[in-house]
This record gives sequence, C-alpha cells and structure tokens, in this order.
Amino acid sequence: MNYQNIRELDQNDSLGYKRDEFELPDNLIYLDGNSQGPLPTCARHKSQQLIEQQRGHDLVSSWNLHHWIDLPIAVGEKIACLVGAQPGQVICCDSVSINLFKLLVCAVQLQQRNQGERRILLSQRDNFPTDLYVAEGVCQLLGKKNCELTLVNESEIEQALTEQVAVLLLTQVNFRNGRTHDIQHLTQLAHEQGVLVIWDLSHSVGVLPIQLNACNVDFAVGCGYKYVNGGPGAPAFLYAAKRHLPHLDQPLKGWMGHRLPFEFDEGYAAAEGIAQFQCGTPPVISMAVLGAALDVYTDVTIDQLRAKSIALSQLFWQLLQQDADLAALKVISPRKVEERGSHLALTHPSAFAICQALIERRVIADFRSPNILRIGFSPLFQRFEDLWNCVQILSEIMRKRVYEQGKYRKRLKVT
Amino acid sequence: MNYQNIRELDQNDSLGYKRDEFELPDNLIYLDGNSQGPLPTCARHKSQQLIEQQRGHDLVSSWNLHHWIDLPIAVGEKIACLVGAQPGQVICCDSVSINLFKLLVCAVQLQQRNQGERRILLSQRDNFPTDLYVAEGVCQLLGKKNCELTLVNESEIEQALTEQVAVLLLTQVNFRNGRTHDIQHLTQLAHEQGVLVIWDLSHSVGVLPIQLNACNVDFAVGCGYKYVNGGPGAPAFLYAAKRHLPHLDQPLKGWMGHRLPFEFDEGYAAAEGIAQFQCGTPPVISMAVLGAALDVYTDVTIDQLRAKSIALSQLFWQLLQQDADLAALKVISPRKVEERGSHLALTHPSAFAICQALIERRVIADFRSPNILRIGFSPLFQRFEDLWNCVQILSEIMRKRVYEQGKYRKRLKVT
Repeated sequence: MNYQNIRELDQNDSLGYKRDEFELPDNLIYLDGNSQGPLPTCARHKSQQLIEQQRGHDLVSSWNLHHWIDLPIAVGEKIACLVGAQPGQVICCDSVSINLFKLLVCAVQLQQRNQGERRILLSQRDNFPTDLYVAEGVCQLLGKKNCELTLVNESEIEQALTEQVAVLLLTQVNFRNGRTHDIQHLTQLAHEQGVLVIWDLSHSVGVLPIQLNACNVDFAVGCGYKYVNGGPGAPAFLYAAKRHLPHLDQPLKGWMGHRLPFEFDEGYAAAEGIAQFQCGTPPVISMAVLGAALDVYTDVTIDQLRAKSIALSQLFWQLLQQDADLAALKVISPRKVEERGSHLALTHPSAFAICQALIERRVIADFRSPNILRIGFSPLFQRFEDLWNCVQILSEIMRKRVYEQGKYRKRLKVT
Repeated sequence: MNYQNIRELDQNDSLGYKRDEFELPDNLIYLDGNSQGPLPTCARHKSQQLIEQQRGHDLVSSWNLHHWIDLPIAVGEKIACLVGAQPGQVICCDSVSINLFKLLVCAVQLQQRNQGERRILLSQRDNFPTDLYVAEGVCQLLGKKNCELTLVNESEIEQALTEQVAVLLLTQVNFRNGRTHDIQHLTQLAHEQGVLVIWDLSHSVGVLPIQLNACNVDFAVGCGYKYVNGGPGAPAFLYAAKRHLPHLDQPLKGWMGHRLPFEFDEGYAAAEGIAQFQCGTPPVISMAVLGAALDVYTDVTIDQLRAKSIALSQLFWQLLQQDADLAALKVISPRKVEERGSHLALTHPSAFAICQALIERRVIADFRSPNILRIGFSPLFQRFEDLWNCVQILSEIMRKRVYEQGKYRKRLKVT
C-alpha cells in the first residue's frame, strides 16, 4: 500500500461526498467518532434556527408550533430506522444509564411476575462500566432475594445462560477491544432458556447493521453522541419489543410518561406504548440537534457504511503491519472483520502519552485505561488518506519515542 | 391607576435596564416566564460559541479544554447562589423528576437505617403532579412495607407530621394557585418530628428568596427552565445538606457519579460529596446554555427581584379590580403578598379559550386544567406597562365575549 493506492481508494469512495456534510476543522484527523461524533452542518443550522427562532422568538408556543412535545417520538423514529425497529418501538429520552435502569427494573419484574424463581441478572465482566454500575444499583434496590448481578467472562456467557437467569445485559461492541457479540445468536440462546435480553447499542448504532425486530430482541438502549453525531451528552434512546409494551411498569414515573400530562391528575396513569418510558421534561435543544444530526443518514444505508468501516479498519491494520516502527503497538481487536465493530484497540505501556502526542499533532484518537489507544472508524466523514496520515504521524512518534516526553504524561480529567 | 402612573413605575424601575438583556420579540407581552423563561442574550451568544467553536471545532477535546466535565458542578454553584446554599451542595443534572427519584430513595433509606419504623412519605394532594408520580413510583419500587405515599390537603400538613412519617415532600409555590409554603417553619416542624424534608423549588427558584442552609433544609430539587431562563427542558438541579452527603446511597448509579469514571472500574464506587448525584453523560449543550443564562443574575439580588415581582402582581390585581369587565375572572391566589409566589391564578369556565384569545393577541399567559388562567410575573424583563396592556386586551376579550368563538376552544397538545 502506498500513498497513490490510498488516493485511489478515496477517489472511488461512493461515500466520499458525505464528508462535506460535517463541520470538520482544517488539518485535523478525527479518529474519535466512536466516542463523540463531529458536528453535521445540518445540525449546526438547526441549532441556530432552534435557538433564535423557536427558543427566542416563539418561546413557550414552540411546544405546539414546532412540535417540541413530539420530539422524543420523532427522534426515536429516526433512530428506529438505524436499528431495524418499527415506529412505536424506539423513544429518545434521558441518558443511557437512566434508560438502562428503567429497562432492568421492567425486565426483572416482568420475569418475577411470569417465572418467579429467576433472580440472576447476567452480564459480562468487561461490559461498559456504566451498564454494570446501573445493574449493581438495580440489584441493591430490588434486594438480593429478587435480583443478583452475576458477571462472567465473554467466553462463559453461553454456558451461564441457565433457567436461573432473569435478564442478560450485553453491549454489542466491547468498548475496549471492539469485539462484537452476535445479537441474533445470543438472543435466541437466551430465549431458549426463558431469559430476557437487553442490548446496549451505544458503540454500534449508526455504523453496524442491527436488526432488533428480526432478531426478536426484547429491549435495547443506545447513545446519541457517538457514531450518530448528536453532540456531547445528546439524549439516549430506548427500544422495547411491542409484545412487552402492555406488560411493563416503568419505575421512573414522571409527568411526560403520563397518559395525559396536561390534565395534571393526582394519580399516575402510564402512557400507552413506548411513550411510557418518558419521565421528566426532555432537554429540547440537545434533542432537536440530535434529531437534525440524524438526517445525514437519509441517503445512505448502514450496509454501505459497514462496508466502508471495514475497509477503513482493514487498511489501518495493513498500514500498521507494513511499518516496523509500529511493531510495539499490539492490536487486541479481533482479526476477523465480522467479529469487530468500528474501532481498533492498540495496546502499549505508554498508550496515554502516545495518544496525547497524537492529539498535539492534530490526530484525535482516545485512550482507555490502563494501556489502550483506540482508533475509531467513521465511514460518514473519514477519508482513507486520514488513516495514511495518522500512521505517518504515529510512526514518527514511535520511532523518536516522543511519548517519553514528560508533557505527554500529565493526566487529564477526561481521557 | 392610569397609564401615566404606569409609565412612572417603569421610569423608576431600578431593574428596568435588565429587559435589554433578553431576546424578546417586538410587540409581545410575555407573562409565562413562570412556565418557560425567555432567552437571555448572553445565552444566545453562548449557544453560538458553544456549537461552532466548542462542539464543532474543538470536538471531544472540549471536555478538558472548555471544562465540560465540570459543568454539573459549575452550573450547580451558580444556582447555589440563588437558593442560599454553599458550593458543594448543589449539582446540575438530569430532570426534576429523576432528581426527585434519587432523593426520595436516599431519604427513605436513610430513615430506615436510622429510625426503622417510619414508612410514610407525606405530600400534598395538589403538589405538582410529577412529584406525586415519582413518589408513587418510589413507593411501588420499595414496597408497601417500606414506604407508603400519604397525600393530605394543604391545611392538614402540620398535623400529619407524626413519628410515622419518614419524608415530607413539598413544592414551595403551588403551581395552580401560587400559594407559598413557609420553608423555615415547615422544615423546623418536620425536624421536630424526626422527618426529613425535600423541597421542590421549581416554581420559585430565581424569583423568591430561598435560604436552604439557614433553614436547615435536608434536600431540594428545582427546574432550570422557568424563572432562571435555561431553555426548554434545561437540566434540573439537586441540593443536599452537607451533613447527609456521606450517608447516602444514590440509586441511579451511572459512570458520571463514579469516583473515578475514567478508570472504567468494574465495581461502583460513588464520588464524594454532591457529585455522587450524577448518573449518565450530561446534555452538555443544554447545560452550558443554562449556565450562561444564569449570568443575568450577577448584578441583581433576589430581594430586588422579589420586591419588583410583588409590585407587578399587586398592580395586576389592582388593574383587574378597577375594571368591571374583568369581574368574572376570580383570583384564587392568596391576597397577602407574603403568601404567594410570582404568578396569579384566575379562574373562569372558559379559561382555556380566554388564554388562546390572549395568545392570538400576542399576550402569552398559560392555562392549567380545568379552569385556571395563569399570569406570571418575571421581574427580570417585564415592564409595568406590559401588565397595563395585558389588562386592556383581556378586558376587550371579556367584554366582547371573544372567547366564545369556536376557534379558541380547539384543544392543544401542550397547554
């Protein structure tokens, strides 16, 4: 692979035109869309119109006039298209953690009503920490006799799916090594044991093919600010299978989840369908900006994006391998493309300093404790040339041992 | 009172200059700041800088570079100044409903550990519904043997404060009639009975004097989008007395409430102090815009605002009384200024249609089911002249029975 080959890849990239739909600074190589996507131009325009016209000029009337009240459902429907769901199955609200809390309580209680003896909440030891923390909180709240968190290694999940398990909680793409789970296979296996499944799609929505309905998935959550570019802390989403919707008792009962919030009744009566998962007043500005950001998906398919994502990560791996200076960076992501998501994880004892040195050279990747450098592939806006340039810069950092300089070792609050 | 008197009130208004700090449309009389405040110009500027520079240009680096990670604490400290709290006691996060859930669980469990037999969660029958819904959800989740919601009328609260009560949950200003509770008196009374108190300040923060520390209040929540002008669905806040902070077990355990979120540990270890109340990733855009909006308070005192709020509501009541065409509108708010917040509630069988007729004439008030027209007083930006003009328009609506026209009766999703 040489620079000329790379140029040809970009020239032949049928998604190449999408890059112009993002506000990317000049001379920046952004390889962190897996953590926080960049700003789509349509979202920037929407923000301006939203703040000045809707928020500023039309004020409180915008709830009706600009349909703010419908945003959780409307944005949910846009996300539904990305995860193989139907309208009425996905809602945009709160954060991933809060939504997981709602679903875990619902799922555990659903199992208790139907199959009383199950009490294990099964998850993977290296699942994304917030998922484990929320699960820990749910178990504490519901009490040991109702719910106990059991964590197993990835290789032990299948055998741990027994008749004692109430709920299986997994993340499709491992945030450290990028390894994917097979949603269809594990959901089916879980169902065979009477186990309900909750998938966290935070690290895959918008870049991996997902078929929640076709895979018969019970519940899912996901994040609005990674590959879907909703902006920092954009509201999250929540999916529920239609068969479960009439049988749930969502524990976070706020007025926006009420059947008739503007009747201001004294007692709670949950809204029907997916709307029951709302709680308080949604952060309209953040949610509307996420809604606008999702419009970049209107003329592309997830299959196209997946194909380019694979091409990007394969190229990066190849470039790593053909450069002897990069030999000290060990790839811990799966070699087979079908087993990994849209980032590669490289380990090195000085991964943090290497990441800081990259950032100073305007290559944005990220670090995950204790020794992982993550390179994210975002097919909507990345050029193959970006990867070539990244590897040149990384190679120089490694060759000259730039990362040994003290200034790159200063820990930051957010890594 | 005549128009000349009104003009003089505005000319002598020491807060009159503040109006220019808001983006108010021309020829609009905005009397709904009690529901959703208008856009401060500083917040508009912040939005633009935030979206273009921080979000667009500096991307994920902004978490460190622009201190996004510190926003919940930084915005919390600005709110602390408005509610008589110290730094480290207030945090900005999630919604009022979610924050109430956290606090109710914490408070009930704190009582159970210390004084096992208490199980009543006491609130007021006409408290803001979301507070009651959340409380209902908490009781359901914790089980009847641990927690039972008891609702009483306002006049029965004091006698209902017994040794069976674990927690008293009240809103300082009643969202319907505007009646205020005496925080100091009721908190003291509750404490004498060993009851913990949670105050909802949503309808008072930013316009009523509040002294949480001086009144020894245990816990409080409040909203960011009413008098404090944070924008639709702006994140809420949560206050906790320092004496309680080391003894709580916040049930919504997400990574942002972890002691070391970026270590990605498997087990949850709550952050110390007020930071333990964070859960998922905060909606940065909405939160930063709220933070900017709070800067309009830097050169005014709450006492100044309260004095003008009283003058506004007294004037409105006087103008109502001196116009015979308005006699059919019954004021149900307390006559004594010290007993009411910053809105007046007027009842009429056609209140909804009257409100719609006002809105069509560019006077924004709001309706609360079944028969209440609310007029909100926002001393930061309202002119006395606005009230004069409102009353003229309202008078014509009543005199000509404009509200009988069918077009004003069409119900809206949000009222």
